[in-house]
Amino acid sequence: MSEDKKTGRARGEDWWRTGIIEMSPGVIRLRGYEIQDLIGRVSFPAMIWLMLRGELPSEDQAALLGIALGAAVDHGPQAPSIAIARMAATCGVGINNAMASAINVLGDVHGGAGEQALSFYGDIAAAMDQGTTLADAVAARLDRFFAEDRGYVPGLGHRFHPVDPRAPRLIELTRDFAARGVVGGRFADIAAAIEAEVTRRKGKRIPLNIDGATAVIYGELGFPPPLTRGLFVLSRSVGILAHAWEQSQETERNKGPLPREWLWAYTGTPVRPFPGREDESS
Amino acid sequence: MSEDKKTGRARGEDWWRTGIIEMSPGVIRLRGYEIQDLIGRVSFPAMIWLMLRGELPSEDQAALLGIALGAAVDHGPQAPSIAIARMAATCGVGINNAMASAINVLGDVHGGAGEQALSFYGDIAAAMDQGTTLADAVAARLDRFFAEDRGYVPGLGHRFHPVDPRAPRLIELTRDFAARGVVGGRFADIAAAIEAEVTRRKGKRIPLNIDGATAVIYGELGFPPPLTRGLFVLSRSVGILAHAWEQSQETERNKGPLPREWLWAYTGTPVRPFPGREDESS
Amino acid sequence: MSEDKKTGRARGEDWWRTGIIEMSPGVIRLRGYEIQDLIGRVSFPAMIWLMLRGELPSEDQAALLGIALGAAVDHGPQAPSIAIARMAATCGVGINNAMASAINVLGDVHGGAGEQALSFYGDIAAAMDQGTTLADAVAARLDRFFAEDRGYVPGLGHRFHPVDPRAPRLIELTRDFAARGVVGGRFADIAAAIEAEVTRRKGKRIPLNIDGATAVIYGELGFPPPLTRGLFVLSRSVGILAHAWEQSQETERNKGPLPREWLWAYTGTPVRPFPGREDESS
Amino acid sequence: MSEDKKTGRARGEDWWRTGIIEMSPGVIRLRGYEIQDLIGRVSFPAMIWLMLRGELPSEDQAALLGIALGAAVDHGPQAPSIAIARMAATCGVGINNAMASAINVLGDVHGGAGEQALSFYGDIAAAMDQGTTLADAVAARLDRFFAEDRGYVPGLGHRFHPVDPRAPRLIELTRDFAARGVVGGRFADIAAAIEAEVTRRKGKRIPLNIDGATAVIYGELGFPPPLTRGLFVLSRSVGILAHAWEQSQETERNKGPLPREWLWAYTGTPVRPFPGREDESS
Repeated sequence: MSEDKKTGRARGEDWWRTGIIEMSPGVIRLRGYEIQDLIGRVSFPAMIWLMLRGELPSEDQAALLGIALGAAVDHGPQAPSIAIARMAATCGVGINNAMASAINVLGDVHGGAGEQALSFYGDIAAAMDQGTTLADAVAARLDRFFAEDRGYVPGLGHRFHPVDPRAPRLIELTRDFAARGVVGGRFADIAAAIEAEVTRRKGKRIPLNIDGATAVIYGELGFPPPLTRGLFVLSRSVGILAHAWEQSQETERNKGPLPREWLWAYTGTPVRPFPGREDESS
Repeated sequence: MSEDKKTGRARGEDWWRTGIIEMSPGVIRLRGYEIQDLIGRVSFPAMIWLMLRGELPSEDQAALLGIALGAAVDHGPQAPSIAIARMAATCGVGINNAMASAINVLGDVHGGAGEQALSFYGDIAAAMDQGTTLADAVAARLDRFFAEDRGYVPGLGHRFHPVDPRAPRLIELTRDFAARGVVGGRFADIAAAIEAEVTRRKGKRIPLNIDGATAVIYGELGFPPPLTRGLFVLSRSVGILAHAWEQSQETERNKGPLPREWLWAYTGTPVRPFPGREDESS
Repeated sequence: MSEDKKTGRARGEDWWRTGIIEMSPGVIRLRGYEIQDLIGRVSFPAMIWLMLRGELPSEDQAALLGIALGAAVDHGPQAPSIAIARMAATCGVGINNAMASAINVLGDVHGGAGEQALSFYGDIAAAMDQGTTLADAVAARLDRFFAEDRGYVPGLGHRFHPVDPRAPRLIELTRDFAARGVVGGRFADIAAAIEAEVTRRKGKRIPLNIDGATAVIYGELGFPPPLTRGLFVLSRSVGILAHAWEQSQETERNKGPLPREWLWAYTGTPVRPFPGREDESS
Repeated sequence: MSEDKKTGRARGEDWWRTGIIEMSPGVIRLRGYEIQDLIGRVSFPAMIWLMLRGELPSEDQAALLGIALGAAVDHGPQAPSIAIARMAATCGVGINNAMASAINVLGDVHGGAGEQALSFYGDIAAAMDQGTTLADAVAARLDRFFAEDRGYVPGLGHRFHPVDPRAPRLIELTRDFAARGVVGGRFADIAAAIEAEVTRRKGKRIPLNIDGATAVIYGELGFPPPLTRGLFVLSRSVGILAHAWEQSQETERNKGPLPREWLWAYTGTPVRPFPGREDESS
């Protein structure tokens, strides 16, 4: 659309262009489909897929997306997002505000592991597309990781769980869907190869975690890594809402992180007089 | 739990009590169920239900919840939440931050209509439980509304759509689920009676809208009104994510509400000299 | 401005009208003053006043505003806003995001006490404007409060401090500014009368707190109660930033509310088998 | 502090350690000073400095900080943060929520230019500390910039203003404070040298903007670049509040970005039948 032809209302409306939704009085279309035709014929995960990808998924693809979304909904009040949702719910704000404060901290450290894992897998897949074998691509990518980064290989290990109970089940299901031809199985193979090679190098098993397992599924389903951050937000929003709702049914007000009668440890400058008031008793 | 028996770690851990999730190394249970048993056996809407209500829904109940969640995902960039998500995506923040800024404005005016509609229906249902007929309960509640409030009766009418295309389809599905015994149909009857009585009083049809229709479904499924605000957030988060994602694929930076070359209308004090600088040329 | 004359760009620009700021290439005016004339000639509190009220304050008025803003900047990590800022800073989001999640919870319970106190004082002032004496107006307003509400009278008492150390100093300064004719002293009189009457009724002293003391100052300076919520946000943002910054210099990641090796108390349904899997060992 | 000595309450309180604020009943100390001694003796900018830096500034240092904070308070409703604050204020959320949604988008693109400018200046200062001349250090840093980056050199140029009216005044004041020995003038020299060299290379003047000018001041005052992002948030929060407040006094509800009767341009898939419903009339 050439800019110089745009004046007034057309210019203003073009400033807000989108390919997602079309509306006129009495009409709402999502990605070209009349919304009343979608309602009751596509599941909620399928609606999510349509909105994000622009096309309807098969029922199986939607089911697998729903499986991944449901697996990551909560990890308890020691996760900062969950604690924040609960504290916010005691401060006299709406439940949407409590959810927003919490979702807002699903950043690179608290919410980014799945995206990082899928990028990692994608690097290996890209090398394989160039003719490298799976084993060689995994080895090269791990060499690069250990040279440049620190910490866990994305998608492996867990601070709390020796084995993350969600991961094996998610991989089992991914293999089932691959056996039925719904997905190819490539990302499951890549994740398994990474896990095996890291085990070999470290001399101990560092198993796949929820971020790696959901990254496998999102990769199998064709979602790009940055978009999977948004999928994690949709998923974790469920736990955030559940905890905010539960807390809102209690009578606590202005809930802090520690029991009310506790304080915090002060490590700063000891008490000192304000300049010029050294002789004043406090 | 008596407070004086709590010391140290037990007191601290009791400060963060919840009935939603239980964890120990290698174990995650949601509402008592091992998470790996839930994964792949319950749909995403069923997981949402379990997290919020504490018990598993039937497959039909989960399906109807998913229908309502999918229906309200988007209403286009003229909705402030959607515009905010798009603008935020151009400002160099994470996609979770763009989503949070948007979800944060689903307040009483932008996100509260469904909660208000369900409260309205609930008032009528409560009167019916006391022996009042549907017609009398509707009449009394409308009398109270027109005496105390202004604007549309909650759940009716739409600023943009003569008939909201989502509502009739949602009610049709509700009636189907009622015919199969999944829900009772009471809230659908209440909403229909309100619509008919308002039509009679106003002399023109003011039809049910998306907020009223989803309120019917959430009421049929037993969700309390304040919690439906959270359900609307989960639903609208999908459109918020879709729009933030779409915008993030464009190159615009710092997107404002109007075309870049436009300004705004200034209605304030005309230019005036700073006190004491009246003789200075600017 | 009549709507029907607006077309195109003029209609769009009028949609975003404001009396605060005027701009053209090379020109920025705030409330009619060239910004380069304001810079270096008005203090930061004076700029805040100009932006919010539309006119420049006297230097004394600006100084008193700055005194109130500086007094409420922090109350430590047991305040949910401060804890949230610190946790957010460990999650891989920007410092503005950590600040936003925290500011977002300065709601009616965590941030509303000052607004509620000033409204309370305003009710008494309005009665006095109608001819009621201070003593009678205070008595009537307290009668109403004790009949309708629960908890502390707005502006009095503190969960943690027998005497809030900030309040007496703020009132002392308010009296100084009143003696110099900068403010009238009316709100200080009202707050003192409330404190005295409540002491009399309760048989023990419930002294003025930070919210009551800053409400006195904001009332003396003519700020309406809802706007003082925003002033409290500006003030508390300083502590929020300080804590987010301090935490960002540490290496903690995904900081939860309790020490990392602690959990939470689970109070929900005991472990139960997923329906149909009762015979499966977990 | 060794971890193994910590049990119970001490461990919990140590989890929340800070050097900013110390409290006990009746006592609040900020950076070691009794708060009632600070109130009325330090300006609001001085309180900000104390909270962020840990020590009291001189009155001149505080004044210069206040000058920088006041200069960047607003840039009008075409700035996404300001538009978001105004839209949020029409959605039925608290003023703190409107402010939070807005502050949340002061990210790397909308709020990061000052931080990026100060980092740029710091690179040059570091080279000068190693013995490089100002001219050589500027040339080297610009060579690196033009090789690696795109767009404006941080701190220079403006999309809207041929000359940003705020910058010359801020530099003039910085030179005044340097002449009085309050600051050294080094960052002003660096910024001037960058501006001159870019002008020479580009063949046209690309003048210093608000981000570069405030970066000069913050650099002169010794603030590290990442912390200046927080200072920009404190500053812009004033305009955000002013606009949210002004909008909250209007009756608009659910304000979108364009006039209410406008739509948006739909660029997506044309209308298509839902699979299996091709024969149904809509």
